[in-house]
Order: sequence, then structure tokens, then C-alpha cells
Amino acid sequence: MNWDNLFSQRVTKTADETVVKILKLSEQPDVISLAGGLPDPSIFMVDEFKEIADAVMTDSGTKALGYGAIAGLTSFREALVRETIRMGRPTNLDEVMVTTGGLAAIDLISKVLVDPGDVVIVGAPTFTAALHVFRSYEAEMVGIPLDEEGINPDLLEDALKDIEKRGKRAKFIYAIPSFQNPMGVTIPESRRRKIVKIASKYGVPILEDTAYRQIRFEGDAPPMMAEMDTDNVILVSTLSKTLNPGLRLGWVAAQKKLIDALVVAKQGQDQCSSTIGQLVAEQLLDKGFMQKQTVAAIDVYRKKRDAMVSALEKYMPEGVTWTYPNGGFFIWLTFPERIDTLKELDNAVAIEKVAYVPGSAFHFDREMKNSLRLCYSYVSEQKIDEGIKRLSAFFKKLMERNY
Amino acid sequence: MNWDNLFSQRVTKTADETVVKILKLSEQPDVISLAGGLPDPSIFMVDEFKEIADAVMTDSGTKALGYGAIAGLTSFREALVRETIRMGRPTNLDEVMVTTGGLAAIDLISKVLVDPGDVVIVGAPTFTAALHVFRSYEAEMVGIPLDEEGINPDLLEDALKDIEKRGKRAKFIYAIPSFQNPMGVTIPESRRRKIVKIASKYGVPILEDTAYRQIRFEGDAPPMMAEMDTDNVILVSTLSKTLNPGLRLGWVAAQKKLIDALVVAKQGQDQCSSTIGQLVAEQLLDKGFMQKQTVAAIDVYRKKRDAMVSALEKYMPEGVTWTYPNGGFFIWLTFPERIDTLKELDNAVAIEKVAYVPGSAFHFDREMKNSLRLCYSYVSEQKIDEGIKRLSAFFKKLMERNY
Repeated sequence: MNWDNLFSQRVTKTADETVVKILKLSEQPDVISLAGGLPDPSIFMVDEFKEIADAVMTDSGTKALGYGAIAGLTSFREALVRETIRMGRPTNLDEVMVTTGGLAAIDLISKVLVDPGDVVIVGAPTFTAALHVFRSYEAEMVGIPLDEEGINPDLLEDALKDIEKRGKRAKFIYAIPSFQNPMGVTIPESRRRKIVKIASKYGVPILEDTAYRQIRFEGDAPPMMAEMDTDNVILVSTLSKTLNPGLRLGWVAAQKKLIDALVVAKQGQDQCSSTIGQLVAEQLLDKGFMQKQTVAAIDVYRKKRDAMVSALEKYMPEGVTWTYPNGGFFIWLTFPERIDTLKELDNAVAIEKVAYVPGSAFHFDREMKNSLRLCYSYVSEQKIDEGIKRLSAFFKKLMERNY
Repeated sequence: MNWDNLFSQRVTKTADETVVKILKLSEQPDVISLAGGLPDPSIFMVDEFKEIADAVMTDSGTKALGYGAIAGLTSFREALVRETIRMGRPTNLDEVMVTTGGLAAIDLISKVLVDPGDVVIVGAPTFTAALHVFRSYEAEMVGIPLDEEGINPDLLEDALKDIEKRGKRAKFIYAIPSFQNPMGVTIPESRRRKIVKIASKYGVPILEDTAYRQIRFEGDAPPMMAEMDTDNVILVSTLSKTLNPGLRLGWVAAQKKLIDALVVAKQGQDQCSSTIGQLVAEQLLDKGFMQKQTVAAIDVYRKKRDAMVSALEKYMPEGVTWTYPNGGFFIWLTFPERIDTLKELDNAVAIEKVAYVPGSAFHFDREMKNSLRLCYSYVSEQKIDEGIKRLSAFFKKLMERNY
């Protein structure tokens, strides 16, 4: 069978094997990978999980192994309603549905909103897998260049005006307002209020991805945009960064009308999310284990952030700049313009045994070649120091060389 | 926010709330639901599951709670390779990927193959959720009317000729050759060989869905089409009917080239399937628990099939016909043409307190109004008898009435 003849258009548009390649490279045992955005496995409360999973199987084993409702188990959705309210958005049961992780939520939302050619507004840079989803629905992506405070409302309004002028439909604005992936930056409250106002004025919903919001090292959290405007903002969250990614559970909180459409769409995605997973997660939330684990994790991640920042200050050559995240998993590095981090990745791995994600992987049109993302959450503090040392040595040599 | 203005075209095309409605109706405690295609919870080996989940958390708790590879954990994929070979298809590791249930596999395959307007050939009738997926990719569906032996190869070839003549692209043939959902019929070996040959001749792959294949009550299993042609047939299977649906695990076995594309696409679907789920399922397969459970389940389901067939013979009025399944979960009933089972569903639930799925839910253009699907796998034998009694009384009255 000649599959190339059969593949859909979207395969050509999404055929970016960078991530697959990086994950493979990072698997080499002597390589220090600062690439994948993974939680530190040491934060997982394995004993508590085991105890609760055991109790769930004893108390409701046959339920746990069966199919559940498409929108999620009612009792778990109730736990998520409480969690969403705790995060600041007034929410009732009809406004919440369970998804198989945060990305599956982004996929469903795109499925019900995006026709080929519709515009999705994204941060430049933004979360690779979300770009992958938007490409798979053949969206036209319009990028808003991010600064140290995330999305600039004026640039957003300019873009919306331009989209309107071109006669196109913007279907939503995809934003990660807290500890953004990949830049680590956070949109301050005043900007959030402006963004919410502008989006509402142009009738364009905001998809607010709160994946990293709970992982805050210092300072007060600005309110979620989903709290400022429950009508126009679609909240997507996940248990992958706070509890664990192994269960594959996330959720959407939004207006009932949209949730109803997403529930119908989920019948054509995965029918329901793991029942046993939902029952265990419900207990871990209700018994306060998730909150307890998150508090402990924040300490771990703060130290790692500090270690990475120190190492960057110690080893990185002049001419390289980086962001300073107050939470989350990531730091974003910018090199002089002539540096192409994608081109250099193989060498960095082969020569210095260190891996990163090239900036272009996070960019809607694969630009930002002179940047890269580092993740401090997964590796040990010692390896962070050694990894940054290697990375600095590699780019120092490169920057000193002829080009 | 006026969501109606924002929804994509595919929402209009997939907005079939029949299934959601039926599931809600069936939740009423005094209603006997013969609707949902659910496994009997009594077959789940809860103690063995609990024991193995416990061992997995003890031995590899941090791994179980982390992210896994996109294609699935290697050790679990190896277990699935062994299972696929046992089922008859020679398979190596590069040809297998893990999915979040069987439907997620159908979704991924459609994503990488179907452009709007491309043809997908389906049985008429076929699995509702698969139709939902194909609609969501805006496929043109061409239906092959099924008989007691499933797909008629001559009708298939006529359809392929016609599609070719119209200058359209058929991207794949969706088939459930064993104990088809919803008809319960099985394609015999000779027809399978012809179908495989025709598909190959026209260069159109077959998506072979083997969800119910293992649930065989009597007779020998014809070989899978995926065994007859490993090149052109894409095998999709699931652990939902043999092990349990609560874990949400399925898999695809196909040519490496297609698997590679599916793995890239999964980055934009759910990134990876549950890690803890894969580790537990791997043990349940390797220790023979799944096979043991399936053997026990077959006994349970055979008795239920017998109970339903007996009840149909006892209670159903003249003029109603039904299929006789040698396995799986379903029996398909056909009424005189004037009966509209969708229109009558509310009455059947309200008056006789019995629920079914109307035939039109399984039909690509929502026809087959005078048919319905019954599921015997979930309810008790006693309730099967009572349910069929109620259903028969309802339709008897209807058929005797003026229209």
C-alpha cells in the first residue's frame, strides 16, 4: 500500500517530527535532557495513590472497570466544580466536563469551533502540541509576539482588527496566561482585564489553558481570565502537572451551550475518560492529597528554577538572554539572530550530550530560530548545573566561531 | 457569547444527540435498558486487577504516574504484539501503537486519511460512534447494505466502481467482520478473502475493527482479514470487551509507515494513553488473566444470548425478524416498514419501561427506521426475558393498530 497517496492534507501540515526526534535523542543514557516538559517523578505521592486506588477497587471495583458517562462521572465532575471554584471561576455542574488530559480538551474545542481557514490566535511562541492540534484542523494561525508580560493587548487588538479587515473569522484566542509554555512568562492582572475586554468586544472567545497556574513559586496569582468573564472564556485545565500525567485527566469549564457540544464531540473522540482514573483522582482531590502534593512540588521546582537561573548566570556567554519564571517548568533562551537552534540540536546532543527544544517547535510558522526552551522540572539540580554548563560551552564555541 | 455563530460545520453534521438521549432515558431505575453496548460488570476480575495494580504501584509507582511514550510503553506494545500474533496477524513492534480505546484509534486513522469529501465505505448499518467520527472529518459515506453474512463482496465492488466512476477517492472500508455492531453478523472466510482481494485491487485499505472477535459462543473463528493481507488491512482492537473499558485502552496493528503517521497525529489527540493503565493491562495479559476472564465471560454472554433469543421466539409477534449472533453483544430486529423505531422510543420507555437503540442511529444517512438494536450483554437473564416481553407487547400493539 502506498500510504503517501492516501494521507490527508492535514498530515502534510502537521508532519513535524521534531518532538518525536528530540524524545528519542534524549533517551540516550549519557545525554542530559532539558527538553521534555515532564514533572519530577519524585513528587508523586505513590503510597497515597496506591492506598486510594486500593480502596476504590474494594468499594467500587466493578464500577471502576466499566464505561462511564461521556461528560465524566458526576461525582468527579462535582470535585472538579469545587476545584474550579477554588481557582476563582464560579461554576456549576452543567459547565464542567472531563477530558483525557488537557490536550484532548484543546482538540475537542478545536473540533467544535474550527473550520479549515478559520483563524486561531496564538502566542508566538506557544505550546507545540496545541499548534499541532490547530494545524490538524487546518486553522490559519495568527501569532501575537509575546514579551516578558505575555500577550500585549494592543498587539492583540491590532491583529483582531486586521483579521476582521481581511474578512476572516477568528474562532478563539489560545492563551496560557500563567508561566506560559514555553516562555515561562505570566500576564499581569491589568493586561488580563484588557485582553478579556478586547476579546469580548470582537466576539472572539479565549481558550485559557491553566496547566501550570498552580505551580507558583512566589508572589500572588492574578485572577484567571475565566474568572473575569465566565461567558467568553473557556477554561481548560489538567491534573497532569499537579497530580500526575499517568492518569490522563483534564477538564473544561465553560458555558453550558459549549459544554453540550463538546460532550457530543467526545462521542467521536474517546467516548469517555478512564473510569478508574476518575474515581481515584476524585478521592485524591477530596482528601486534599493533590493540594498537599502540589505544595511539596512547588518547593522542589523552585529550587530547580533557582539552580537553572544560577547556572545560566554562571556559564552562559554574553549575548544570550533568558526569561525569569515565577512558576511552572520552563525558561526561554534567546541567542543572537545568526544562531539556528534547530540546526544545532544534533551537534549539541552528539558533542556536548545535552538536549533542548528548539524555539521553532513553538512557533506557528516555525520561526524564532535563535531561541530554545529549557525545562528545569524533570532533572536533578546537579544535572541542571552540568546540563547548563554543557549547553553554555556548546553555544559559546558556536558564537565565537566564524559565523 | 452566541456559540451557534461560532460552531464549525462539523458540529452541524455530527449533532446527533440520540445516543446521549438514550443513555439518559435508560438511567431511570424502572426502565430495562437493552440499549447501551456495555459488558456485564460481573465478568470483571476485580480482585486480580486490584492485586496487579497494587504490584505495579509497588514496583514502578513513579513510572506508572508519569508520561509515557506517544506510541505506548514498549513493554505493553510487546504484549500487544504477542496478542496480535495470537489473533493471527504476523506483527512486529514497529507495527503496533497503543490508543485510548478503539474509537480513539478510528479517530486517529480518519485524521491521517480523510479529507473533507473523501469517501469512507461503511456497512449499513454500522457502529454509531464510528459514523460520528467519519462525519466529524466530513467524509462522504457510502453504505453497503449488510445481510446475514455481513458485507456482500459483489455489492462492495459495485460501490468501488461507482466511486471511481464519480472521480472520488475512497480512503478506507470500515468493517467489523465478527459479531458486527449492531447486527451481530459475521463475515464467513470465503467472503473475507474476496473482500480483501477487491480492496487490494482498488487500492483501498480496510479498517478491520475486531472489538467483539474474542467473544465467540460456538463454531470456529474465520481468520482476520488483517491476517490475509497485512499490507492493506489496518487492524484496530480494544481491551474494552475482553478485559474492561474502564482503562480506555486499544491498539492499532498496521504497516509501519501508517503507524508512524498515527504516532505523529496522536501528539495532537491525547499525547499518550494512561501509563498506569498500560502497565496494569500488560500484566493482566501476560499472566493470562485476560484470557481467563474472556473464557468465563463467553459462558455468561452465551447464556444471555440464549435467553434473549428464547424470549424473542416466545413473545415477538409475527412479522418481526431478528439476527442470530454466534458471539458479541447484539441482536438486530427488523419490523414491518411502516414502523419508525426512533419515533416510538419515547413511548416504549414511557409506557412499557424498556429502552433500545433505534436502527437509524447506526445508519450513515439515518435510514433503516424500521429496525433496532438489542444488547444482551449487560442486563440479567431475568431482565432480558422481562425486557423482551415488554418490548414485544409494545410493538405488538403498535403493529395491530391502524397504521
